[in-house]
Amino acid sequence: MEEAKGTVKHVLLAKFKDDVPPEKIEELIKGYADLVNLIEPMKAFHWGKDVSIENMHQGFTHIFESTFESTEGVAEYVAHPAHVDFANLFLASVDKVLVIDYKPTSVHL
Amino acid sequence: MEEAKGTVKHVLLAKFKDDVPPEKIEELIKGYADLVNLIEPMKAFHWGKDVSIENMHQGFTHIFESTFESTEGVAEYVAHPAHVDFANLFLASVDKVLVIDYKPTSVHL
Repeated sequence: MEEAKGTVKHVLLAKFKDDVPPEKIEELIKGYADLVNLIEPMKAFHWGKDVSIENMHQGFTHIFESTFESTEGVAEYVAHPAHVDFANLFLASVDKVLVIDYKPTSVHL
Repeated sequence: MEEAKGTVKHVLLAKFKDDVPPEKIEELIKGYADLVNLIEPMKAFHWGKDVSIENMHQGFTHIFESTFESTEGVAEYVAHPAHVDFANLFLASVDKVLVIDYKPTSVHL
């Protein structure tokens, strides 16, 4: 098994509150994406709505994936004032959230 | 916002049971990775252990990300006998599991 050198994926699952309108969700997604411009160690950002068919998503509606070069980079991001401000805004609009970080690893069989 | 053409990421979070030994977990990870060789629409596989520092991972210990070219490809994978057999093995070793699929989308600000 081979670990990608340094790269850390930061994955956040969210369920937005039912009364949050789509335009507010879009604004929050843009705010999340904009962190790439504000926080140096955050290198990339992708997101998507749940399109799973197995009904094992436990109510989560959206997933956000950002990329860092190291776990130290994630720590810098978490503590960054721009992240703290955004997180307060974001968390006010969600019913639940789950965060998991990992170093993407390939398997050579 | 720009949706990657067709590509679907299939993300599975798992918490292995406390009594499952590391070598059994490694075997299951290899079995998961081997599905790339058995199920045509499954194009890539990466995994990693949780290394998050925010304590918002809700007990999940591992994340698995596989890549498909379409939601139809995911449906073919889910129904494939090799997946069904593996899923039965895998699920016997986990306390909990969460699955979310999404089409990775970029945001142009």
